[in-house]
Amino acid sequence: MDFDALFSGQLDALKAEGNYRVFAEMERRCGTFPRAANHKDGKVREVTVWCSNDYLGMGQNAGVVQAMVDAVQTCGTGAGGTRNISGTNHHHLILERELADLHGKEAALLFTSGYVSNWAALSTLGAKIPNAVILSDEGNHASMIEGIRHSRADKVLWKHNDWRDLDRKLHAVGDRPKIVAFESVYSMDGDIAPIREIVEVCEAHGALSYIDEVHAVGMYGPRGGGVSEQRGLAHRINLIEGTLGKAFGCVGGYITGSAPLCDFIRSFASGFIFTTALPPAVAAAATASIRHLKGSEAERQAQQANVAKLRARLDRAGIPHLANDSHIIPVMIGDPVKCRMISDILMDDWGIYVQPINYPTVPKGTERLRITPGPLHSDADIDHLVTALTALWQRCAVSHAVA
Amino acid sequence: MDFDALFSGQLDALKAEGNYRVFAEMERRCGTFPRAANHKDGKVREVTVWCSNDYLGMGQNAGVVQAMVDAVQTCGTGAGGTRNISGTNHHHLILERELADLHGKEAALLFTSGYVSNWAALSTLGAKIPNAVILSDEGNHASMIEGIRHSRADKVLWKHNDWRDLDRKLHAVGDRPKIVAFESVYSMDGDIAPIREIVEVCEAHGALSYIDEVHAVGMYGPRGGGVSEQRGLAHRINLIEGTLGKAFGCVGGYITGSAPLCDFIRSFASGFIFTTALPPAVAAAATASIRHLKGSEAERQAQQANVAKLRARLDRAGIPHLANDSHIIPVMIGDPVKCRMISDILMDDWGIYVQPINYPTVPKGTERLRITPGPLHSDADIDHLVTALTALWQRCAVSHAVA
Repeated sequence: MDFDALFSGQLDALKAEGNYRVFAEMERRCGTFPRAANHKDGKVREVTVWCSNDYLGMGQNAGVVQAMVDAVQTCGTGAGGTRNISGTNHHHLILERELADLHGKEAALLFTSGYVSNWAALSTLGAKIPNAVILSDEGNHASMIEGIRHSRADKVLWKHNDWRDLDRKLHAVGDRPKIVAFESVYSMDGDIAPIREIVEVCEAHGALSYIDEVHAVGMYGPRGGGVSEQRGLAHRINLIEGTLGKAFGCVGGYITGSAPLCDFIRSFASGFIFTTALPPAVAAAATASIRHLKGSEAERQAQQANVAKLRARLDRAGIPHLANDSHIIPVMIGDPVKCRMISDILMDDWGIYVQPINYPTVPKGTERLRITPGPLHSDADIDHLVTALTALWQRCAVSHAVA
Repeated sequence: MDFDALFSGQLDALKAEGNYRVFAEMERRCGTFPRAANHKDGKVREVTVWCSNDYLGMGQNAGVVQAMVDAVQTCGTGAGGTRNISGTNHHHLILERELADLHGKEAALLFTSGYVSNWAALSTLGAKIPNAVILSDEGNHASMIEGIRHSRADKVLWKHNDWRDLDRKLHAVGDRPKIVAFESVYSMDGDIAPIREIVEVCEAHGALSYIDEVHAVGMYGPRGGGVSEQRGLAHRINLIEGTLGKAFGCVGGYITGSAPLCDFIRSFASGFIFTTALPPAVAAAATASIRHLKGSEAERQAQQANVAKLRARLDRAGIPHLANDSHIIPVMIGDPVKCRMISDILMDDWGIYVQPINYPTVPKGTERLRITPGPLHSDADIDHLVTALTALWQRCAVSHAVA
């Protein structure tokens, strides 16, 4: 059996369809976000990043950086074990209390990543609640899909953001334990769920509501508690899942909810139990970041202003982009090869980094540039981006009707 | 549906059987390992940790700490995205080259944890290699079991460390793509696999060999390349998986292997693709740690000397422990309540922290203390531990015949 030949064959197929991924090698530079160094073909040059999920630039916030440095110097570089076996650090518990408070919940539980938090929580709920059914928005993230799949519970897909369809499907399930899993902000289209209607439907059917707020925590709500806080609905949702790796500028994931719920996941989730805890220094940095964004609206306001500015400039330039109520600006291309080409030209000719988003991150035929303006982009940065895109739209004859 | 009542009911069952977990709240103190602060009932006291997986104390190594501090200050606290979308940092690539070199392989691929690396690699191999069968040592870690389960490939268990049984089962599988998954050092019994024989059986059947070296990397072999390096077998194993969270003192996991193998996992593994990359500073710290342990035998030698010392002292004191060829010293208790009680007394009366290891980490009835001496434990620490255990063995009338 020639395994390498098999691997190479499948990789060749990816390449032939334009979906082979080439990672841009970046070097983030604290103090100059969204500027970063790009390493390519042995050369290093400064570029402007327009596709970061460090949405608010908290990864270079002086207080966050200092909190991490201090904790590395006082606690060392790692946790030294799983949460159960010597790996629970004082900083983890402080962070879990901070997260519970952020969402107004009794408890929180920390995971090594947002992916793992979704995968572990959903697979445990689905597997350990007898006769459970999970009703999943058809647009849910890979981590939720894999968690549900791993649970082997019955799964029912409902139409994206369609609470009426959810209502019908909950009704059809009948008298079984029901879990409804959805997101607030969908990463790739940037659309926001009708959370109030979904929550009301869940309540009417006695279903456990599970919301993924990874693209919203830190970003929405007066304290950064996400869209569920912004809309005054957090207390009506059973489980709020979030990440420390996007607006909070660090790494890691979490769930919040009732004390029995979090204790249940803590006690039974393989992906929580059998893994080394996050470094205390990461927990300390995340705590500093959450506290900062609980008290400061400046980053959110500056970011929202830049999002509005860029949208208006794109409209004026005739560059089509998906309308939505979030901070994510998808510019649709619809072809993987063209998407990669545009991204390459932006990087090479303009010093602008926007990663092409191709399958499997988005469905084939919906390839796009996903632009995420931050509070640290200047007006000149926005001008430069729109000028570049305008030139490209003319040069590449990308259809203005695509979106 | 009262979900909280359901959760509480299952937690009560755990409590009734003595398997409810209480995490010790520790505060690691850089510069004083294996001493740490224990927070309990509002009080803080200094204890000696005897159950850390920071096996060599690299979490407080000055060079490793400095590398992490430097990278936090230059790159910020997080990666800012998935590896594909702005999250690949120069430090990740340096680390991947270092890891490939450590194991003498063409390539390496970094994951957010060792758990995720096993889960993602095995689930991808099992799912994407048409008609694959995975032959799994029955003692494999939860992360491998879950990865194999998630792949939905056919699975064949073989008797723990029994290469003859593996040979028979490979033969029975016949002409299909075969993956053989096993570990070098098994965490809870500390026994080491007959790697040479397993590799020869794999070669005879044309099977892909997959070894988990998480408890061995940094610890065995002249450069810390694990048991496969120590025994001169690394080049005959297709995939070597390891962690940055134990002997290397940080967090994160990886695989190494041929370039097509790593590129295949990189391109198709959901758990690799859809998750935020590790912070650049973690990668920088891990690189420093690996480089240090490639060049220094001092930590390994001091640790092995302390392991031998403690074993000899336990033997003299008549405290039974499992014999094995590794650095892990399991002291068998065989009852979850007794195991927890002994651990509590050690902590409260003696300032010694050894976490009780209960189900599901070990099978019910094999509860144990798992002691991991490090290079930084002093002779006085060893004396103190043996004195405490001796006193306890008398007080609790733990059967000397248990092991």
